[in-house]
Amino acid sequence: METLLYAQLADTLIAQIRGGVYKVGDRLPSVRSLSKREQVSIATVNSAYAILEERGWVEARPKSGYFVQRAQSVQIGKPRTGEVTSKPRAVSTKELALEVQREASITRSRNFSCAIPDLQLSIAAVIQKTLTRLSRQGTALGQGYDSTEGLFELRQQVARRGIDGGVHVSPDAIITTLGAQNAISLALRAVTKPGDIIAVESPCYFGLLQMIEAMGLKAIEIPADAETGMSVDALKLAVQQWPIKAILCISTFSNPLGCTIPDNHKQAIVNLAVRHDLCIIEDDIYGELQFDGPRPKTIKAFDPDGRVLWCSSVSKTMDPQLRVGWIAPGRYYDEVLRQKYTNYLAAPSLPQAVTAEVMSKGLYDRHLRQARLAYKQRSEQMLDLAERYFPQETLASRPKGGLVTWFEMPRRLDMTELYHQCRDLDIRIAPGELFSVSGLYRNYFRLNYANEWTPAREQAVQSIGDTLKSMLVSR
Amino acid sequence: METLLYAQLADTLIAQIRGGVYKVGDRLPSVRSLSKREQVSIATVNSAYAILEERGWVEARPKSGYFVQRAQSVQIGKPRTGEVTSKPRAVSTKELALEVQREASITRSRNFSCAIPDLQLSIAAVIQKTLTRLSRQGTALGQGYDSTEGLFELRQQVARRGIDGGVHVSPDAIITTLGAQNAISLALRAVTKPGDIIAVESPCYFGLLQMIEAMGLKAIEIPADAETGMSVDALKLAVQQWPIKAILCISTFSNPLGCTIPDNHKQAIVNLAVRHDLCIIEDDIYGELQFDGPRPKTIKAFDPDGRVLWCSSVSKTMDPQLRVGWIAPGRYYDEVLRQKYTNYLAAPSLPQAVTAEVMSKGLYDRHLRQARLAYKQRSEQMLDLAERYFPQETLASRPKGGLVTWFEMPRRLDMTELYHQCRDLDIRIAPGELFSVSGLYRNYFRLNYANEWTPAREQAVQSIGDTLKSMLVSR
Repeated sequence: METLLYAQLADTLIAQIRGGVYKVGDRLPSVRSLSKREQVSIATVNSAYAILEERGWVEARPKSGYFVQRAQSVQIGKPRTGEVTSKPRAVSTKELALEVQREASITRSRNFSCAIPDLQLSIAAVIQKTLTRLSRQGTALGQGYDSTEGLFELRQQVARRGIDGGVHVSPDAIITTLGAQNAISLALRAVTKPGDIIAVESPCYFGLLQMIEAMGLKAIEIPADAETGMSVDALKLAVQQWPIKAILCISTFSNPLGCTIPDNHKQAIVNLAVRHDLCIIEDDIYGELQFDGPRPKTIKAFDPDGRVLWCSSVSKTMDPQLRVGWIAPGRYYDEVLRQKYTNYLAAPSLPQAVTAEVMSKGLYDRHLRQARLAYKQRSEQMLDLAERYFPQETLASRPKGGLVTWFEMPRRLDMTELYHQCRDLDIRIAPGELFSVSGLYRNYFRLNYANEWTPAREQAVQSIGDTLKSMLVSR
Repeated sequence: METLLYAQLADTLIAQIRGGVYKVGDRLPSVRSLSKREQVSIATVNSAYAILEERGWVEARPKSGYFVQRAQSVQIGKPRTGEVTSKPRAVSTKELALEVQREASITRSRNFSCAIPDLQLSIAAVIQKTLTRLSRQGTALGQGYDSTEGLFELRQQVARRGIDGGVHVSPDAIITTLGAQNAISLALRAVTKPGDIIAVESPCYFGLLQMIEAMGLKAIEIPADAETGMSVDALKLAVQQWPIKAILCISTFSNPLGCTIPDNHKQAIVNLAVRHDLCIIEDDIYGELQFDGPRPKTIKAFDPDGRVLWCSSVSKTMDPQLRVGWIAPGRYYDEVLRQKYTNYLAAPSLPQAVTAEVMSKGLYDRHLRQARLAYKQRSEQMLDLAERYFPQETLASRPKGGLVTWFEMPRRLDMTELYHQCRDLDIRIAPGELFSVSGLYRNYFRLNYANEWTPAREQAVQSIGDTLKSMLVSR
């Protein structure tokens, strides 16, 4: 019994540290007070602390007690906050990004590399039924091209949903797109010309970096905090120093950090954009995937004059196969519409109709409630597994929403090598190298926790851990 | 009886002139010889010739006989062949193009403005059934993103179909796209940078001109012949004079002229491209819609070294709502793939699967046989109606495939005004202004003949004619 008790107590303490009850440097309760508070023996408390110490959570200081050594939510990039570390750079082309994307089409139990939602949740059956029914009814066929603006019913649903995020736009201010990547691509084409400099968060989702490269733009990396996202101070400095054209960021539950820019920072970023007459391209694709509480506000909610281009999609909440996204481009409406028209004339109507119907019937909201709970539990489980199997030097972000966790390893390790070694084991991870234009994150990697934990997936995490440990030993 | 006979004879003669049996300037058979050959009275022949004269087909020269005055298949742009009339120009933005496109989403009996196929042909039911079945089977859902290359089954079908057009590429050399517009857009992004000059045929489909503008490129207009398309001589001159980066043309049954570049010109264009190291973006979207005989060869068929980017789709042969197209980009494969990835990651799989299945089961070929016959008859009917209702000054192209006819009016008339007047009558036409960057075709317009002729549509053509006549009177 006693063994169970100390393990339980250790778990409780770790949860409290993770949850921020105790932060790095904080002194934990004394053995005596904890014994009293938790109604357990002194020996039990000592054993629990021994576990925490062994796992690297706490440090014992003679005559002072136990102090938190790491909080699992690493403040990645924080050392760099306040100074812009990199000049604007052309993004170097990475075959790796295409390779990782290619594998996003492969259903495999041991794939952790892509930010794809769990496609086995009950919404899948709803999508399929709706699609089949609408297709049997002949919806959207035989009527020529969809309008370039996109299906009104969907734009109406999007306008309604936006309100929760503080977005107040009419359906006529929205243009549907082929997913959020396409929305951002249209936005960038509308507001930039080749050679322009775009401020991105660092680390930055590689699909955005690749896009910036393909358009002949330059990226300047603004350090992002693992909890509060893009550093406002660093952004301020960068904006003063460089002729930045636009700010591009995943504002809520960012990929890969899982961080969310707090409301006051969102306001500050908008203020900065107004002062320097920049526009902001907001990728809000994870915005409705909070684990707890209300849906966070968007940057668009603070937009005073139409300079925020709000982009999102259902690729993380329904199915990326639908290729349904949207943009509320504010003052850039005409140019975004023209870009869509010249790129592909119009989107297919059927997936838009399916999405609109699932939303209008309340099935989307019902699904989100289920998905939020599932992803919250699965992210916890991911951290638990990482803790059990990964080397104790591992640091991990603690997302409060979204689909991915970001891991940091000691600087001497190369996670692109981990990627290749895992690949040989038929396991896929996303190496940190992809998330920067200046080679900042070679010792980082990203894992997706969205899928249900099965023995095979747990085993795969263990294999990743074993590979990391052997890499540590051999360096 | 006699009245019917002379009308019949007049129709026969007009068909012969249209078909090129007698060309402009040719002397028609004498009244006597025709009377003998056709076994009709002298009076009948005289009456028939009177009709032809009244309608402006023939000119009576005293003591010489009747001479062909116009051949209906106008050689549009021919006066300009041999000299490049325009400098490379930035394409001016046209709200009109977006407006015309917007109405492509509206099913209306009186819409002649868009190059949309007849969506009531029996293929529609095949598409719907296949879509419903595949969607009920759950095809393409729940498996993450499609690969950026696109669905293999479709690429395989496209590779097989290409052979008829002389395209010999493997499925691995093909990338699927969201229609041909998107294929061309990816191609241009892959091979150009802003400021580059693109040679286009003139008149040129406005969707391409708009695309060129949106990308910050410049267009140089190469005069096109109403039968043989882009002038090789003019192209040669332009290539010597300007640093042209790429040649962009609809090689077969072009929009709006309906012309097809003959094989020896296709070869000459490729030779020119090789000599000056240009690439060729070939829009082959109407290539399988010939009225008679075998499917014309593509420019890609003459490609010696991968410099031709072959683009097409099923938007003119199945349903534009599918948004299924493809590109065989030759040596530009990697860059086109990267452009697709950064634009929208991947296309939806389901419409690709539907298209592949319809093709593989032979249903596509069966449909094409039906469509070719229907479009041939409808194009004839369009010309007959135009002849009956349009002013006699009208000149029209005579397409041998595809979906549209190109009309020329006297230079003093403005067809953008016709567009607006027709719009008030709830009739839509495509005004010629859209088809040039240098205002060349204000007295031209384009009509789609793909839909079945109903009394309402015939009536609409009559109304267009009445409007044209009243415009002529008031000028």
